[in-house]
Amino acid sequence: MSKIRIASLQMNVLQDKYDNIEQLAEILASGKTDGADIISLGEMWCCPYQTDLFPVYAEPEQQGDAWLAMSTLARKHNVYIVGGSIPESDSEGHTYNTCYVFDRQGNQIGKHRKVHLFDIYAHGEQVFKESDTLTGGDSFTTFDTEWCKMAVNICFDIRFPESSRLPALAGARVIFNPASFNMTTGPAHWELGFRQRAIENQIYMVGTADAQDPSVGYVSYGHSIITDPWGNVVMQMDEKPGVEVTEIDLDYIDTIRAKLPLMSARRTDVYELKGVE
Amino acid sequence: MSKIRIASLQMNVLQDKYDNIEQLAEILASGKTDGADIISLGEMWCCPYQTDLFPVYAEPEQQGDAWLAMSTLARKHNVYIVGGSIPESDSEGHTYNTCYVFDRQGNQIGKHRKVHLFDIYAHGEQVFKESDTLTGGDSFTTFDTEWCKMAVNICFDIRFPESSRLPALAGARVIFNPASFNMTTGPAHWELGFRQRAIENQIYMVGTADAQDPSVGYVSYGHSIITDPWGNVVMQMDEKPGVEVTEIDLDYIDTIRAKLPLMSARRTDVYELKGVE
Repeated sequence: MSKIRIASLQMNVLQDKYDNIEQLAEILASGKTDGADIISLGEMWCCPYQTDLFPVYAEPEQQGDAWLAMSTLARKHNVYIVGGSIPESDSEGHTYNTCYVFDRQGNQIGKHRKVHLFDIYAHGEQVFKESDTLTGGDSFTTFDTEWCKMAVNICFDIRFPESSRLPALAGARVIFNPASFNMTTGPAHWELGFRQRAIENQIYMVGTADAQDPSVGYVSYGHSIITDPWGNVVMQMDEKPGVEVTEIDLDYIDTIRAKLPLMSARRTDVYELKGVE
Repeated sequence: MSKIRIASLQMNVLQDKYDNIEQLAEILASGKTDGADIISLGEMWCCPYQTDLFPVYAEPEQQGDAWLAMSTLARKHNVYIVGGSIPESDSEGHTYNTCYVFDRQGNQIGKHRKVHLFDIYAHGEQVFKESDTLTGGDSFTTFDTEWCKMAVNICFDIRFPESSRLPALAGARVIFNPASFNMTTGPAHWELGFRQRAIENQIYMVGTADAQDPSVGYVSYGHSIITDPWGNVVMQMDEKPGVEVTEIDLDYIDTIRAKLPLMSARRTDVYELKGVE
């Protein structure tokens, strides 16, 4: 049982949270994801990508309508859902960029709060400061599935090799990285980053993006992608809304690791990478 | 004084050590490297890439002819030399894959022993086991120049993000990575690796390879390369012997770091990467 079918949902994020939830329900009901084991959503799939809106759209863990919709739809369609991200509020007034993961029964089996917040100052090109309204998470996340351990990073996390390395060392063989790169960083670094993290950790990387919408303030690059442990691009979408179901083969990880032993060749007597408690 | 001219010497490695030394002297005398501040050589530029020959060609630190040639030529031509690598022997009978670095006066200012040995078992494509005759180094290397701190990795080291990350965190703004990828790993991963390490650490990466020679056992991919902190390929050669002088601008590192603050956005409260004493 080494093969998994992953449905990447590159959604056009609408202004209204409930329209986005309805859009998700409609896609899953449409038959487009039939046969998929895992549904992968984009970053902030239910909320426009504006820092001022994150606190407005935020909901407490397990108590909001976006969370409930994902849990219900996972159970209804008998699929895992790696829920991209939605804004999460806590009791102290913080807002997080959070991914919830659900199993086929709709149980929450994982949660990742984006660790590295995206602050960019590319004058004349891109200015965006997530830290205006968001708080960063303080740990990495792996979760267990019927196939293997997996993990979640969110968008900017992928730029930091430590963010993929630590979950891979913990045994994750697939890392989901819901993301919205922009029209500056996307063409320059999107595909490259997913290929390199897959190569250096000899794992599958799954990047699910929001579709491109030139009418909004922050324009997502789109190009949802899946890369394999040799760095091949297994699937890549264009910028438009769409659904792609891709089969990956976990055995290929072992084939590559036998051919080119990278993970076991790390020199832990020379350097040490660890999570801080 | 932010600009540096780097001469990449993609040499055709000859069977005889002294022919290789003479080849180096001739290139530097030819005028092809005139105006260069730093000469960058390939991995094992003076020794055929065969595990059984490494101990035979090895010389003790500061006492062999390849070492002496590099020191003498650096002084003669008033250039830094980042000496690719040569086999080094120690008093205990070990052999290392070692890069020596010289300043304009011919003083040795740095030394790196390849940390990660290259053992590959790609059946029917590549089989190579450096650990048959080589011992791995046990530390990373930075050195100071008139411009900034720099560092050396050797070939396989580049595959491990820790190997570039630690010297970059120590302040290295240029990392030399003399290397001989092969005809399997080269097309698949060479350019990608140099681009990604440059992007994630926001530094320059300099990869100097040996030229391709289909008549030998281990065929080098060639394609000596320099990548900048945005991930652009500033220079890339083909597979043939050659010399390229490339100007890099260190100020561009600061431009990129101001635009997209990656190095300062690391979450050292969440993870820790350090060298082991």
